[in-house]
Amino acid sequence: MKDGDFLRKIYLDNASTTFPKPKQVAEAMYQYMTQVGSNISRGGYSSAYRTEELVYETRQNLADLFNATDCKNVIFTKNITESLNVILKGFLKPGDHVITSSMEHNAVMRPLVQLQEKGVSFTRVPCNVDGTMDIKKLEPCLQQNTKMIVITNASNVCGTVLPIKEVGRFCHERDLKFVVDTAQTAGVNAVDMQEMYIDALAFTGHKGLLAPQGIGGFILQENMIDKIEPLISGGTGSISHTEQVPRFMPDRFEAGTMNLPGIIGLNAGLNWLKDITMEKIKEHELNLTKYFIDGIISLDDENIQIAGKKDISGRMGVVSIFIKNKEMAQIAYELDEKYGIMTRVGLHCAPSAHKTLGTYPKGTIRFSFGWWNTKEDIDVAIDALANLTKDK
Amino acid sequence: MKDGDFLRKIYLDNASTTFPKPKQVAEAMYQYMTQVGSNISRGGYSSAYRTEELVYETRQNLADLFNATDCKNVIFTKNITESLNVILKGFLKPGDHVITSSMEHNAVMRPLVQLQEKGVSFTRVPCNVDGTMDIKKLEPCLQQNTKMIVITNASNVCGTVLPIKEVGRFCHERDLKFVVDTAQTAGVNAVDMQEMYIDALAFTGHKGLLAPQGIGGFILQENMIDKIEPLISGGTGSISHTEQVPRFMPDRFEAGTMNLPGIIGLNAGLNWLKDITMEKIKEHELNLTKYFIDGIISLDDENIQIAGKKDISGRMGVVSIFIKNKEMAQIAYELDEKYGIMTRVGLHCAPSAHKTLGTYPKGTIRFSFGWWNTKEDIDVAIDALANLTKDK
Repeated sequence: MKDGDFLRKIYLDNASTTFPKPKQVAEAMYQYMTQVGSNISRGGYSSAYRTEELVYETRQNLADLFNATDCKNVIFTKNITESLNVILKGFLKPGDHVITSSMEHNAVMRPLVQLQEKGVSFTRVPCNVDGTMDIKKLEPCLQQNTKMIVITNASNVCGTVLPIKEVGRFCHERDLKFVVDTAQTAGVNAVDMQEMYIDALAFTGHKGLLAPQGIGGFILQENMIDKIEPLISGGTGSISHTEQVPRFMPDRFEAGTMNLPGIIGLNAGLNWLKDITMEKIKEHELNLTKYFIDGIISLDDENIQIAGKKDISGRMGVVSIFIKNKEMAQIAYELDEKYGIMTRVGLHCAPSAHKTLGTYPKGTIRFSFGWWNTKEDIDVAIDALANLTKDK
Repeated sequence: MKDGDFLRKIYLDNASTTFPKPKQVAEAMYQYMTQVGSNISRGGYSSAYRTEELVYETRQNLADLFNATDCKNVIFTKNITESLNVILKGFLKPGDHVITSSMEHNAVMRPLVQLQEKGVSFTRVPCNVDGTMDIKKLEPCLQQNTKMIVITNASNVCGTVLPIKEVGRFCHERDLKFVVDTAQTAGVNAVDMQEMYIDALAFTGHKGLLAPQGIGGFILQENMIDKIEPLISGGTGSISHTEQVPRFMPDRFEAGTMNLPGIIGLNAGLNWLKDITMEKIKEHELNLTKYFIDGIISLDDENIQIAGKKDISGRMGVVSIFIKNKEMAQIAYELDEKYGIMTRVGLHCAPSAHKTLGTYPKGTIRFSFGWWNTKEDIDVAIDALANLTKDK
């Protein structure tokens, strides 16, 4: 790049958080913040009721998206990490055993490791080196005290999709609870709670659902509600005469003042998504993914390896590369500094996944694509990689 | 009001959430959402580092406000309810005893009642009918296994301030941990963690700190860090090679993607507050409070009673009234419908406080004042009450 040139920024870190968001998201939040502002369930006035309707609409949009049975079972949290903690720590008891995959994010693994100290045990289904899971490997992981399977829908490191429909059926046939982390798939892949026998689905707002950071949630099937002890309790604006936690939904799991700007932003994102359709977003992201993978392969550099699958079947728009002969943090720094390309380098909070992919402990540089990326962005990225990995 | 008149809205529900916020708050959030958008601790690019600096500045602003020893011990949560749950459930063990007041919000009481089922016991210091606490009543509540005192800084129902400095000294002299809920005081009253011997301070953003809903937090003294088991664990963008929860701050208690628009809004609120100064805000709110109380008294209606203190010493800008001869929900509805006055009616998520004040189970109508309210607002409210409570 020549001196004085304007460096166009290319955001390829959509697996961390999507950016930009549809303009309606920030606008809806700004409008709420400046014109409405009121809380819900807590005020005896009309603007509080109008805000409550918007929150209801958001729950309904999410229930529709994931085919939940009842929108009152859609719970808002601050992020999917909280959601997974509530589900896992609220449900699992000392003596219980749970099965997970070897591709999980620390949002699943750290709660499980904490629970281990309280007498809960877990087994990781060993996944293949490309991140795929062989459904036949579940059976040998079963124990008499197995109560639940919790897995991610797709790897945040390499984008490989796990067979949640098959795992759901496996759980259903054995009366195991099935918990799915949709952080990398919600808003791009169809996830159907009924068809996939999902008992508890955790989602985040700020990735494929185009919401701001700070809002996530989970959805329960009716049979899970009583079985999960709320991790957080407090005022709900309901049954205020009692110091007991309400048993009814959504209040059972929603204590304290809610993130209303976040929910309103999420609703704007969901409405935008309905218009564009998930199918189009997925098609666009996978086209870019294929173009990027083909670009990497065409470099024909044995020092650059793709971690995970090399085709686009069963994957999301997330590609991790491992560079053998260079310091990857330095490459990521130069991608930003010299080419304006924003990526993420390291272990992506998923050491277990990197061990499975053979990229532990060095990690990878991750490129993840979104609706606003173009083939030109990919061209710049491939050229940049070609230059930066060249031995000088 | 005549037909066709524009009904000016008068927001007197600032104890629920302050409104409006300084315009800088929504603007900073909008700017971040549309221009920056990136996560922190998770990207190898410069916009991620700039956002990280803003988050650091927010921690520093909060550390300054509450005189914390180290801004790394400022933790962000989604709301003060989460903060209190993390502190109480993370610290208290089966067999422990904790003292609280009879004026608490359910954000304290519901976690304590949940903990009771796990073998933690608690005693309420009985407060006086005006909500004040007699420090001499603490001693008889002590047990051999008492580990902590947790109290609110001021009642959300009637605005009465509790003597936290004296309670802090009491704790310090007996080696008890002292936890303070500053929901109703932060940003208006000076709260000094060192001078008041506060071991853990919980705060919310969306009240006196002028932030949006969805962001709160807590601050720990160094000696508390190891003693609190994190309630929520997951990816932190740090020590990603391990599935253990980090021991260092703030990562120990901040798992998952943070509410960055919320933090940036909070920082804008804190900067605005520094300019205006807490002293001026407090003076303004108490002037309005006195004017309102005087107005109620001048109605000379024995059916209207003020719950709590009738003067402005040791109180916040929150006034609850009890109306003997009318349905209070109906009065609150008509206040909004006919006069545009937004209040909150009921038990305000604090049944214990209402029992203390003698207003349980009917509750009260609560009027709470903020920086943007005027004496004219109060005049309208007093006139409205005079009309609505009149026997027709």
